[in-house]
Amino acid sequence: MKETVIKMDKKVKLNKPILIVGLPGIGSVGKLVAGHLIKEFKAKRFAMLYSPHFPHQVVMRSDGGIRLVSNRFYVIKAQKRGGSDLVLLTGDVQAVTPEGQYQVNSKIVDFFKKELGGKFIYTVGGYSIGQGVVSRPRVFGNTTRTKVISQFRDSNILFGQSKGLIWGSAGLILAFAKMSGIDGICLMGETSFLEVDASAAKAVLTVLAKKLELKVDMTGMDAKITKAATAIHAFEQQVATGFGGASGPAGNEASHPTYIR
Amino acid sequence: MKETVIKMDKKVKLNKPILIVGLPGIGSVGKLVAGHLIKEFKAKRFAMLYSPHFPHQVVMRSDGGIRLVSNRFYVIKAQKRGGSDLVLLTGDVQAVTPEGQYQVNSKIVDFFKKELGGKFIYTVGGYSIGQGVVSRPRVFGNTTRTKVISQFRDSNILFGQSKGLIWGSAGLILAFAKMSGIDGICLMGETSFLEVDASAAKAVLTVLAKKLELKVDMTGMDAKITKAATAIHAFEQQVATGFGGASGPAGNEASHPTYIR
Amino acid sequence: MKETVIKMDKKVKLNKPILIVGLPGIGSVGKLVAGHLIKEFKAKRFAMLYSPHFPHQVVMRSDGGIRLVSNRFYVIKAQKRGGSDLVLLTGDVQAVTPEGQYQVNSKIVDFFKKELGGKFIYTVGGYSIGQGVVSRPRVFGNTTRTKVISQFRDSNILFGQSKGLIWGSAGLILAFAKMSGIDGICLMGETSFLEVDASAAKAVLTVLAKKLELKVDMTGMDAKITKAATAIHAFEQQVATGFGGASGPAGNEASHPTYIR
Amino acid sequence: MKETVIKMDKKVKLNKPILIVGLPGIGSVGKLVAGHLIKEFKAKRFAMLYSPHFPHQVVMRSDGGIRLVSNRFYVIKAQKRGGSDLVLLTGDVQAVTPEGQYQVNSKIVDFFKKELGGKFIYTVGGYSIGQGVVSRPRVFGNTTRTKVISQFRDSNILFGQSKGLIWGSAGLILAFAKMSGIDGICLMGETSFLEVDASAAKAVLTVLAKKLELKVDMTGMDAKITKAATAIHAFEQQVATGFGGASGPAGNEASHPTYIR
Repeated sequence: MKETVIKMDKKVKLNKPILIVGLPGIGSVGKLVAGHLIKEFKAKRFAMLYSPHFPHQVVMRSDGGIRLVSNRFYVIKAQKRGGSDLVLLTGDVQAVTPEGQYQVNSKIVDFFKKELGGKFIYTVGGYSIGQGVVSRPRVFGNTTRTKVISQFRDSNILFGQSKGLIWGSAGLILAFAKMSGIDGICLMGETSFLEVDASAAKAVLTVLAKKLELKVDMTGMDAKITKAATAIHAFEQQVATGFGGASGPAGNEASHPTYIR
Repeated sequence: MKETVIKMDKKVKLNKPILIVGLPGIGSVGKLVAGHLIKEFKAKRFAMLYSPHFPHQVVMRSDGGIRLVSNRFYVIKAQKRGGSDLVLLTGDVQAVTPEGQYQVNSKIVDFFKKELGGKFIYTVGGYSIGQGVVSRPRVFGNTTRTKVISQFRDSNILFGQSKGLIWGSAGLILAFAKMSGIDGICLMGETSFLEVDASAAKAVLTVLAKKLELKVDMTGMDAKITKAATAIHAFEQQVATGFGGASGPAGNEASHPTYIR
Repeated sequence: MKETVIKMDKKVKLNKPILIVGLPGIGSVGKLVAGHLIKEFKAKRFAMLYSPHFPHQVVMRSDGGIRLVSNRFYVIKAQKRGGSDLVLLTGDVQAVTPEGQYQVNSKIVDFFKKELGGKFIYTVGGYSIGQGVVSRPRVFGNTTRTKVISQFRDSNILFGQSKGLIWGSAGLILAFAKMSGIDGICLMGETSFLEVDASAAKAVLTVLAKKLELKVDMTGMDAKITKAATAIHAFEQQVATGFGGASGPAGNEASHPTYIR
Repeated sequence: MKETVIKMDKKVKLNKPILIVGLPGIGSVGKLVAGHLIKEFKAKRFAMLYSPHFPHQVVMRSDGGIRLVSNRFYVIKAQKRGGSDLVLLTGDVQAVTPEGQYQVNSKIVDFFKKELGGKFIYTVGGYSIGQGVVSRPRVFGNTTRTKVISQFRDSNILFGQSKGLIWGSAGLILAFAKMSGIDGICLMGETSFLEVDASAAKAVLTVLAKKLELKVDMTGMDAKITKAATAIHAFEQQVATGFGGASGPAGNEASHPTYIR
């Protein structure tokens, strides 16, 4: 395998599709958002993306099978007649090198534009402020063109207040969209250095749901937030009381990935 | 040399060949298994694989010659009339980069399918549990399709109990096999962080031999296990008695590779 | 995007153009010089260079928009009739890998020669002496051919006194110019390990302005120098008086880039 | 520049040429040997090799010029009528990545075989034993085929006693020669971890000179050995007498390369 490939499981016919990209990144915000929507709306997977620029890994499935790491496209058909279908892109990994990032992300935009006839792209990421816990995460936005900002008035998105660099798919997909004449926005949930930040993801989901007129059940996401808060609280108690030990604090069930070769 | 090449020494005619892949990796389990089978059954080498994605190394041979690092294909002709011939793949190295891994491993699957008419693939690796010495290593299995699992009932292979990621050839060859419509299984011997784990290799060999109806003499492998156990025991004694010194414990003849450029 | 591309905004017609390359590097000398000339002479941007060998980053703009990291070409039309137009090349980044550097820089020289009909190239960089603060930075020069040196008599440029290696665009663009039969010079402002060294930049600017018969207002550059000197002085005072704290010294407004993915 | 190129300055006509490769590596043994022969025999340069796989560096020349890092081919015409001409390959650098090493070194062998009609290759390197100072460096040899060893009887070369791996050009050029049906030998001078080991170089030169029937003046090489010995002696004295300071010991004029970008 020398080139990035996108394999469609079946020919889908989409109406004015909107793409929502939620790949691994800071705080796992993008991946949480995409995963939640896929689960809540029982989105159907219709295409797989494999790339030699991804890590050389295979995932062991709990049923004893395997699968190559990938990015995956899902669809949620429009709930209103004539409305836009939602395409979700999520996955295990992003490309490892700059060259790989440029190739994979330009391929994604090409596919969305030419194969799916796509019209608008949301990318989702975490915006790291590099400080302690964020109690009420804000949502920052950057768009392909400043003209696009006006479509997001009254959306609780802060524009022009995020600074610095967007790394990886969340940025490059927007950049290639802009070059291809497609508009889009990057939504960033404010996060500190948590590995998985469900609060930031919920903040973005709330904004997205309103804009896309989706009724999203947040129960599952709230459970994740509560679980993390409980773990942090227990940990702080432990530190305060001087109690410590080999076993982790309640709720902090870290996953220990096993690597074989 | 800009591309991975497979050079066949001679045209071989194989009957329903089964591939067993044993390349360097965790605990050297794959390499030990392949090496043992090649030695015990006096397997004949029939093809070499060279790749610009391998390390830029040449091996100094004990006869004063040299050879470029490579992967190598061997054949063990079927012992029963009409049975499957066994093809063994082993070597010095694996590809260095993700791009190299994708290229080399997809090439191996293509070669096995198209040139050799292959039907089934075993890949062998170590499954690291990241803890002390494993007294009775278990064998874990993951297959291309869950349907394949049923072929391995009563094989002492644990399915669905291995978690995480398979890195490198042991995983990617299975993934590309799956894409090419070839079935296969990854057999993983449980191992801790030993560099060379003959116990784990023997566990996999035992499972393989039963399934493939091979009578495998384990004397050589047992000698390796005993040697390692003696070394570990001597080392523990030393630690316990406070004796130590510049020379290593008996049996622990570490090889000191020399690097020149 | 698999190849480096140069997109011209509009077809420009240039007269005997001279290229001045000021990209990120030691002391930001090149970037400061190019930036100052672009600002002072209100240079017009006419072409963009994007490359898969650049980091996979998108810049968040203060107006809420985005842009892919790039190198950019600007033009300052000749002030005298028949004089050479000045083309300035600056940008956010340089290529990450050796392969990328060779590709991007040879492409820049090709573009300047074939598309723009270019005649001479200046590259600007910092010359690090690895010691404390440089009070009066010298300017070192290295040319494509020793014959070119004679054009720079009475220019306050030191030839044959710089030693070692020139990394990146400042060196490679000259090397490819030489191979293409275009002459050029690398001007290096002496600098210590400051991240942004406006004194070194001013030294190079002074030499350049004289040679190119440009009247350059140095007010902005002087302000940067004064600001840095004040910061260093304040810091030294602080160290001397034993005062220190969490907040940085006056004038030292370090920028904290924020990274999201 | 996307491909490795070899530019011939002039068409040379060579008689049964023999290649001697002395590129940067352990103890600089190869580079010292090639450099000494080029100087002593006033070898003429006739071809340059440039590669995007080399570091992105330009060398500042003492005359104020520049040159891109390269490998360079020189010729020493046979001193006997009908004898073999000697081609020397030396340079500033080797390729950075495995892929680059495979490409550059296979290109060198192709060029030597097809363009120059070459017949035999010597590669020269250091053989690191990883211990203190070597008083009388031995010379180890490894050949493309064991049959070649017989040509080196009575050459004071030790065969079959070197173990491990040869990294880079010294090994890969031999490996590609072997694949192309050209014979060759890698000569390795025993060395410890000195950066530049003139003793090891002299040992190899002595062996080479005898075999190639070259009268090589060793005065320059002996001076380098004496200088290094004096420096080491002075350093040991210093350590023994407890004297030390900021300035280095006599004779130890370390070069401080300067890097600019």
